[in-house]
Amino acid sequence: MRKIAILGIGQTKVGEHWEKSLREIGGEAAFAAMQDAGVEKVDALFVGNMLSPLISGQNQLGAFFADWVGLWGQEAVKVEAACGSGAAAFRAGLMAVASGDVESALALGVEKMTDKAGRDVTAALATAADADYEAEQGISFVGINALVMRRYMYEFGWKHEDFAPFSINAHANAMHNPFARLHEKITVEKFEKSSMVATPINLLDASPIGDGAAAAVIVPAEKAARQPRVVVAGSASATDTIAVHSRKDPLFLQAAYRSAKRAYDMAGLPPSEIDLFELHDAFSIMAALSLEASGFAERGQGVRLALDNEIGVGGRIPICTRGGLKARGHPVGATGMYQIVEIVQQLRGECGKTQVDGAKTGMAQNIGGSGATILTHILTKEV
Amino acid sequence: MRKIAILGIGQTKVGEHWEKSLREIGGEAAFAAMQDAGVEKVDALFVGNMLSPLISGQNQLGAFFADWVGLWGQEAVKVEAACGSGAAAFRAGLMAVASGDVESALALGVEKMTDKAGRDVTAALATAADADYEAEQGISFVGINALVMRRYMYEFGWKHEDFAPFSINAHANAMHNPFARLHEKITVEKFEKSSMVATPINLLDASPIGDGAAAAVIVPAEKAARQPRVVVAGSASATDTIAVHSRKDPLFLQAAYRSAKRAYDMAGLPPSEIDLFELHDAFSIMAALSLEASGFAERGQGVRLALDNEIGVGGRIPICTRGGLKARGHPVGATGMYQIVEIVQQLRGECGKTQVDGAKTGMAQNIGGSGATILTHILTKEV
Repeated sequence: MRKIAILGIGQTKVGEHWEKSLREIGGEAAFAAMQDAGVEKVDALFVGNMLSPLISGQNQLGAFFADWVGLWGQEAVKVEAACGSGAAAFRAGLMAVASGDVESALALGVEKMTDKAGRDVTAALATAADADYEAEQGISFVGINALVMRRYMYEFGWKHEDFAPFSINAHANAMHNPFARLHEKITVEKFEKSSMVATPINLLDASPIGDGAAAAVIVPAEKAARQPRVVVAGSASATDTIAVHSRKDPLFLQAAYRSAKRAYDMAGLPPSEIDLFELHDAFSIMAALSLEASGFAERGQGVRLALDNEIGVGGRIPICTRGGLKARGHPVGATGMYQIVEIVQQLRGECGKTQVDGAKTGMAQNIGGSGATILTHILTKEV
Repeated sequence: MRKIAILGIGQTKVGEHWEKSLREIGGEAAFAAMQDAGVEKVDALFVGNMLSPLISGQNQLGAFFADWVGLWGQEAVKVEAACGSGAAAFRAGLMAVASGDVESALALGVEKMTDKAGRDVTAALATAADADYEAEQGISFVGINALVMRRYMYEFGWKHEDFAPFSINAHANAMHNPFARLHEKITVEKFEKSSMVATPINLLDASPIGDGAAAAVIVPAEKAARQPRVVVAGSASATDTIAVHSRKDPLFLQAAYRSAKRAYDMAGLPPSEIDLFELHDAFSIMAALSLEASGFAERGQGVRLALDNEIGVGGRIPICTRGGLKARGHPVGATGMYQIVEIVQQLRGECGKTQVDGAKTGMAQNIGGSGATILTHILTKEV
């Protein structure tokens, strides 16, 4: 595949932006990315979004945003893979540029979630699950993840408080990210006293939703003069059954394993060469499962990595260096693009107190549904 | 761009399939396409769909269908561009194969529309328009098209009955297509007496919705041994403002002009070399506007082509040879894939009484919204 570079990035602060529309939030990130890239136009726009038909009554976000961000007339399309929509849009952009049919693209992840009541958002998020065999039974999306977490604790003997380091790390890192939704340090005590959502998942196991957008301009690597040059070394997407109960082993993310393996192969890098890992900690249990399926921990031992403080900046495999889904926030269709943007920031050395020293290689993993669609991207710095 | 061939096609009859689920309809077309191609697996699945979150409470159709059609684990994603979703999924598949990262793909357009009441479907279809500046004012999607048709009649001096040949041709051709929703010959009298929907658009100006799915297996051309070999000679996508009132000229489909021009350039063919044209006659006015913007008629003279009987099989530019949206039916996100499948049938010479003699080149044009996203594909036969 043709080598692709990321020329510019942009993002908005994740939050409850009641004063801004879907258009304005997406536009903010898109304009920032084009300005950062030093371009006024790209050949094509790929928008990652999950909920705009349900929350904003708006489909066709490709054309919708193309005109708004100054790309009138250009090719534009929306890509959707539930909470994996952001990375799916990024990968669609990569393929378009790699095909040679377009020479530059803007990948934009955008989600406006706070314009509806909580129960409507909960119902909308359930469309990521199997409508016939999961949602139809009345289980919510967090409920599905709670069953997985409960089983994991039973199988591997972990207590709820053992998951605390995931949240503590994410919240601590978010303190230094101005684009994060939550700026609040937490402790094990606070974690354990947090309100229950769906046993055993409490409020501090779960990522907050929010309005947000993040974007990147991509071009063929040979056309990227900017230093350091950040290139896409690996990109892969894989799927699993949409319903968790259909899996032989509900505690192993097959799609993470498959997409990570292909990304490693494409990049020619083993897990040990990854300097930081922006994973999809929608719930603390998902952080553990991602680490295991991606080759950073043995089965059932993802939690151990966190307890041993190997996930912090300076640890063996830093995760959620800008706050992760847990504290930066999880505007679902935008999240995958936030991960890409944050890795570029790390590779450029722009992360201040949560900078991973000498970071040359970062990996992003974005998950749609309860592990049904998983995309893994590896970015490297070329100096 | 790497040359791509269409190895197999499949489709379901468009209709009210209350006895079949979204899964079953999509699966039918997908299985048929893989069987026709003689393959049991492909590397990646691209699903075109507009309404499943709103009608079926189901998102993430990539993973949803991958498992169902025997592609467990493979890459899969949904692509959405309102009623242009089908062709958008096809183009995403082309780019994936052209990039060299996957060696085969299944493009599937699928829509299940009849599980909700008519008013819910009308509201769902309005998400193709601009939610803030069109739908919010209470105008329906057909209402927007009615304003365009009224203005066209005023500007160019046509009467309503002048549009009759579009519907008559589509209905006549659908008589010979077992997959068509409507099998009913119509006349000018019947056309003029049909119930009004939104003045001047009556029931016989408008295409019927429906449940349906169509699919194609694509591979690099050098890997397609099948004779005749149908290849993609041109592929392009372009956008216009999402709201019609934002356009300088609401009677010219800029995105059709731009995408057709790029497809002609890529194929190295002028409009005169196109043997048949599957256009997007969601409303009769759109057939006229497509013919004009794509170079088959002067401004305001698309209707003349129809009146002169140049659009029938045997005419200068046969359109809707299998019934078009008007009579084959318009399961919105599937329509673009029906067009591709129908052109392949023509190039293979499988169309019986509506076969275009010696057809070597066919063009498909799929429209999202009121001309906001338009994709044009040119297929040719290599013997």
